[in-house]
Amino acid sequence: MTLENSRYKVHFLPGDVSVEIEKGKTVLDASYKGDLFINALCGGDGTCGKCKVILNTGKVDSLPTTHISEAEAKQGYVLACRTKVMGDLEVLIPEESKLDKSQILISDYPQFSGSLAAATSGLEQFEKKPLVRKIYLELSPPSLDDCMADYERLCQGVMVHANVPWEVLATNLTVLKRLPTLLRDAHWKVTATLGYRGSSVEIMEVQAGDVSAQNFGIAVDVGTTTVVAHLLNLSNAETIDVEATYNSQIKYGDDYIQRIIYAVQNNAMEIMQEVLVEDINHLISTLVKRNKLSIHDIGAVVCAGNTVMTHFLFGLDPTNIRREPYLPSASFVPPIKADDVGIKINGNGLLYTLPCVGAYVGGDISSGVLAIRLDKVDAVSLLIDIGTNGEIVLGNKDWMVCCSASAGPAFEGSGISCGMRAAKGAIEKVTITKNFDVVCKTIGNTPPSGICGSGLLDCLANLVRSGVIDRTGNFQKGIDTERFRKTDDGYEFILVDKNETATKKDIVITQADIQNLIRSKAAIYSAISTLIESMGMGVNDIEQVYLAGGFGNYLDIRSAITIGMLPDISVSKVQFVGNTSVIGAKMSLFYKDAYEVAQTIASKMTYFDLMSNNKYMEEYMSANFLPHTDIEKFPSVAEELMVP
Amino acid sequence: MTLENSRYKVHFLPGDVSVEIEKGKTVLDASYKGDLFINALCGGDGTCGKCKVILNTGKVDSLPTTHISEAEAKQGYVLACRTKVMGDLEVLIPEESKLDKSQILISDYPQFSGSLAAATSGLEQFEKKPLVRKIYLELSPPSLDDCMADYERLCQGVMVHANVPWEVLATNLTVLKRLPTLLRDAHWKVTATLGYRGSSVEIMEVQAGDVSAQNFGIAVDVGTTTVVAHLLNLSNAETIDVEATYNSQIKYGDDYIQRIIYAVQNNAMEIMQEVLVEDINHLISTLVKRNKLSIHDIGAVVCAGNTVMTHFLFGLDPTNIRREPYLPSASFVPPIKADDVGIKINGNGLLYTLPCVGAYVGGDISSGVLAIRLDKVDAVSLLIDIGTNGEIVLGNKDWMVCCSASAGPAFEGSGISCGMRAAKGAIEKVTITKNFDVVCKTIGNTPPSGICGSGLLDCLANLVRSGVIDRTGNFQKGIDTERFRKTDDGYEFILVDKNETATKKDIVITQADIQNLIRSKAAIYSAISTLIESMGMGVNDIEQVYLAGGFGNYLDIRSAITIGMLPDISVSKVQFVGNTSVIGAKMSLFYKDAYEVAQTIASKMTYFDLMSNNKYMEEYMSANFLPHTDIEKFPSVAEELMVP
Repeated sequence: MTLENSRYKVHFLPGDVSVEIEKGKTVLDASYKGDLFINALCGGDGTCGKCKVILNTGKVDSLPTTHISEAEAKQGYVLACRTKVMGDLEVLIPEESKLDKSQILISDYPQFSGSLAAATSGLEQFEKKPLVRKIYLELSPPSLDDCMADYERLCQGVMVHANVPWEVLATNLTVLKRLPTLLRDAHWKVTATLGYRGSSVEIMEVQAGDVSAQNFGIAVDVGTTTVVAHLLNLSNAETIDVEATYNSQIKYGDDYIQRIIYAVQNNAMEIMQEVLVEDINHLISTLVKRNKLSIHDIGAVVCAGNTVMTHFLFGLDPTNIRREPYLPSASFVPPIKADDVGIKINGNGLLYTLPCVGAYVGGDISSGVLAIRLDKVDAVSLLIDIGTNGEIVLGNKDWMVCCSASAGPAFEGSGISCGMRAAKGAIEKVTITKNFDVVCKTIGNTPPSGICGSGLLDCLANLVRSGVIDRTGNFQKGIDTERFRKTDDGYEFILVDKNETATKKDIVITQADIQNLIRSKAAIYSAISTLIESMGMGVNDIEQVYLAGGFGNYLDIRSAITIGMLPDISVSKVQFVGNTSVIGAKMSLFYKDAYEVAQTIASKMTYFDLMSNNKYMEEYMSANFLPHTDIEKFPSVAEELMVP
Repeated sequence: MTLENSRYKVHFLPGDVSVEIEKGKTVLDASYKGDLFINALCGGDGTCGKCKVILNTGKVDSLPTTHISEAEAKQGYVLACRTKVMGDLEVLIPEESKLDKSQILISDYPQFSGSLAAATSGLEQFEKKPLVRKIYLELSPPSLDDCMADYERLCQGVMVHANVPWEVLATNLTVLKRLPTLLRDAHWKVTATLGYRGSSVEIMEVQAGDVSAQNFGIAVDVGTTTVVAHLLNLSNAETIDVEATYNSQIKYGDDYIQRIIYAVQNNAMEIMQEVLVEDINHLISTLVKRNKLSIHDIGAVVCAGNTVMTHFLFGLDPTNIRREPYLPSASFVPPIKADDVGIKINGNGLLYTLPCVGAYVGGDISSGVLAIRLDKVDAVSLLIDIGTNGEIVLGNKDWMVCCSASAGPAFEGSGISCGMRAAKGAIEKVTITKNFDVVCKTIGNTPPSGICGSGLLDCLANLVRSGVIDRTGNFQKGIDTERFRKTDDGYEFILVDKNETATKKDIVITQADIQNLIRSKAAIYSAISTLIESMGMGVNDIEQVYLAGGFGNYLDIRSAITIGMLPDISVSKVQFVGNTSVIGAKMSLFYKDAYEVAQTIASKMTYFDLMSNNKYMEEYMSANFLPHTDIEKFPSVAEELMVP
């Protein structure tokens, strides 16, 4: 307990944002208060070193850190998360530490009718019946010979026109209270909104006349890092618009385990929920305004997220997700009123979520399996979704197994000295010649600010191909290039000179970065490999590989095989399927039957816990090599790298 | 619009209750404000003349009325409903004008195991499964080999122990949020409360340990005049306690048509709902306190009421009930949270209502049919429920028809000079000898204050038997008794001399009273008769008659036949079944299947609208006689009255 009540002003540049904050809070806290997104991948733990800011004036209390070099310290650099406010401050947020919402890439998420069509062509189609439907009814007016009550008359109309059995029809008091006047004012011609609620169908609303075309829904991919929302016209199954934002929970931790710890320690389940719901509401209201719609016409939201995000969305206790034996509070929450969690759509609108399989395989994966209709194919297929975590599903229409690999956040750019998220200015492709010339391609073709996941992976493959590093990941002795140098922290390889970067600092990859990336790829590879072996299969039995997640879109598949992240399979078997989480959510929204299939999928999938699996640990150790200690598992790479 | 803002004080005696009220409001309004129940059967229309009060001091503006005699006017009598407050007043409420809640008779409502058992003995019993159940579960704790999520683990337990299919199970966010901590604190031994919600079963609550015996419910008969609540132990199907009150809506009109008019004209649906819900809440809290229970353990309320009361309970618009073609807003409202209408039980507790058949045959009648299991008997039976309205059901297990007769409020004591409700001091039995000696029996055996329904009926039969009146209902010319006299208003017969009454006034029956009663009995008879004829049957085809409603209990059946209210059948065929409305509500609460049977009953019953039925009007005219113009329809009465 402290009695200290002093408050100080922190003035942030550029942008001239001032906030008042109590003495002793960190500069990072102050930035959150001012709604400034500072890159703090580790969530303020002091481990990622991304939240560097420059202290122009004022008194602070800064903890020592290895992330700030002496040179930087002289320029006034401090870590925002390790620096306590002890007086009025002026703080400059440098370009590389900013997290700018406008940088989220959504332009090339495949649309529903896009790349997915290829994956599912020839498969059974669902009946065109969205989760929330609007049905236009012309009821026969009552008479002395036909004195059925208003509500029952409506139900009869719904039953006949929408083919819904009487006994599952339900409604709410708002509808019942307004019904008599409405029916008569509308001369018995009305539109009924029907919401699917599992074992019942709710008449959510009744409107005068034919407004059945005014039926919209929102599909949301609730990611740990980003939240992506699609606005859909439910009357014709078209995607109207897309919007994305960072998950504002980032301020409580970059990965979801950190957020669970924060939520549990601070009893902050409600705060985690509020923050997430606010993000979703912001996306919805942006989409609605931009397309000149009414929030009233949004009758349904379908969210697909991992198990932790799904817990936060409902305000459920996630404590046991990270405690052995790793249990969710609930794997599946049946449809509820969106308003019950604070999501602002039609007052009677419904919230649906995709079912989770277990603590570490969530609704985003059920959604992904639905999106590629893995449950309908004969071919043994692999779905790999690499986001903040990596989830893998193996199977076909007859069986499905899945697991989750703790790849660590390296592919998200965290824990890598020049790592960054896939955003404008991120290096996404790297070529290194035998002469150690380096060519980098950035997202948006602007001067580079750092390297994102696909760039890091490509870089690693090219470092080994060009002989800069050996198969253990160590820099080769005696490489003759100025790009190679030793610093206080060890060896590093310069990819881009500071004169050519946006940050005016060299973009490098260090020995530590390389080992970090190898550990990450080894985690994914060994998960895939263990899953295949556990089914008594070999790599050659895999007929199709689907790469999902934002990461997948920019990945060089050959590079992923060269470093041994993916097993040695033909590149032609691999297909990018984009954000399958949002695609599955959209399918559920459009097709009630798809929403039900997702539940069957989730209940059908067998979850393998890798942490307690000895085979996995052995495989992981062997995979801490490029591509693997057993090169015979990678014949094409043996040839490429000319391993004898 | 008035700018008049003066307020005056009205002081009521006895009891010393003072209220402040605006100038121009009536003394009746003032009494409501003071929560004093003045007898105002007509609801303040000035027609019943029951709200006589004595003005001790103060200035009023009183409308002329025929209900106050000159002698009374001299003593200061005014009608509370016709008298406007124009200054500070002192008002005395005389004994006969008081409506005292403690007078409501509930002591001899038959208990569930009482007279009903006889009516239904040998009939199929329902499975012992209440609408809200508490199930004790000992769940197996999770392990790495059994990592089912908490909620799904609970569902599995419910599925196995309570035999509920997985796909109909639902729950609420409160349960889900508390579940993980609760399950672990309780070492996986919990009690789940399951609420039946039509197409789904809601896990309403989960509690630690075995509290399955703490399961209580309330069955309510929501009458137009009285509201009766039974407290039930759902774990052993026992009735614990009973409580009753007047329906506080009385202040807005004595019969439900007046209340509809009030509600519609004043847009007062919410007020009508609040008043009714407050009555129910008052009954519940009284029962809970008296039996030292917790409101938390009340998980369900089942209400049976006529269509209008059911509308008011849900706050539904009753406008079209009294407009051709006479439609309810809804005949059946599926289970909702009790809290949604403001009923205070367990926060997740459910409210169930019995289904209505039409505008004038309500849930109280479906409930009654269920109570006597008319849907299971072979014998062609008649259920007659005479309350504020009279409803009649004819049928057996194969078919059912029903109708409603506007008997008028005469049998409730309204519109009858010395009429009163069945309360302490009401004459319930009358004997008149050939010498015109009169013997009266009162409820509670106290000095009489007036005559209730059964007394009026008995009186009418004995007036004709003794020859005081002829079969047209007119006083016989030349009757030699001091009891017979002429006043300014016509002829009257003195039943009890003022020296022997509680009111110190003669208790009389007037020519107008007699005609009023004949019209009422004619309405009921012709409804019964039309219903029987409409099925191509005769009176002799009726094998069993059930008399329901508070009225039924005190009725002299032979007298009812003598005056021609009931058709001429053997008295042995007639059985009193008490308040079948509350009995059916209790059956529904105890047995989920009974609640469903009530819905089948309601949908199976065919409603006959008598108002548009010519046969009914003809029959009604012929029945305006004692017992009937066609004496051949009443052979036993012809013999009794020695009609040639």
